[in-house]
Amino acid sequence: MSTAASAASSRDLPHPERADIRLEAVLHALSDPMRLQIVRELAADGGELSCSRIDLPVTKSTSTHHFRVLREAGVVRQCYRGTAKMNGLRREDLDDLFPGLLDSLLAAAARQTVRLGG
Amino acid sequence: MSTAASAASSRDLPHPERADIRLEAVLHALSDPMRLQIVRELAADGGELSCSRIDLPVTKSTSTHHFRVLREAGVVRQCYRGTAKMNGLRREDLDDLFPGLLDSLLAAAARQTVRLGG
Repeated sequence: MSTAASAASSRDLPHPERADIRLEAVLHALSDPMRLQIVRELAADGGELSCSRIDLPVTKSTSTHHFRVLREAGVVRQCYRGTAKMNGLRREDLDDLFPGLLDSLLAAAARQTVRLGG
Repeated sequence: MSTAASAASSRDLPHPERADIRLEAVLHALSDPMRLQIVRELAADGGELSCSRIDLPVTKSTSTHHFRVLREAGVVRQCYRGTAKMNGLRREDLDDLFPGLLDSLLAAAARQTVRLGG
């Protein structure tokens, strides 16, 4: 992708700078099963996914809300590509601020899914 | 302490069984700065502390609320000893369910405190 295009589309939606990301906000963002599911799918993919590619059992407006909470906490980066809103995990930012935390959280979520047979 | 006395006083307050502890609830419990502070102090102490030993810049009723959220999420165990309500981190339960997560969270919180000069 073109860096200029990415920067331009990224400006459409407010994101916290890396230095403004707070642990409490990240944990709040991940304290919801739907948002945890989004983060797990983005982590598994490793790239960017459109909102519509992540199938959640909620209405579109609720889904939009969950993505916004994740974006405002600094967990995901969102940008428009044409009519699609694309989402990517801010792994580099999170790993820099909180080394090992994201992987621990993903492992804990995976383990819980197995435990609960989900 | 006597095991019988501990069991009796522990029954006064509802706690989730280990198998009923949910990652989302744990993350919600830790998504508040005051509750994160409580958990850090309990982890640093390694034993039990009375509510009054943990000095938070909030009213007593707010403090009581924060301890209750932590207890109901399965993060702390609370019991009465005479007139004191004692609190201990449920490290064994959390480490069993989510290996490494608590230490990652504590490290992330410590790192953020240093970063923000708090």
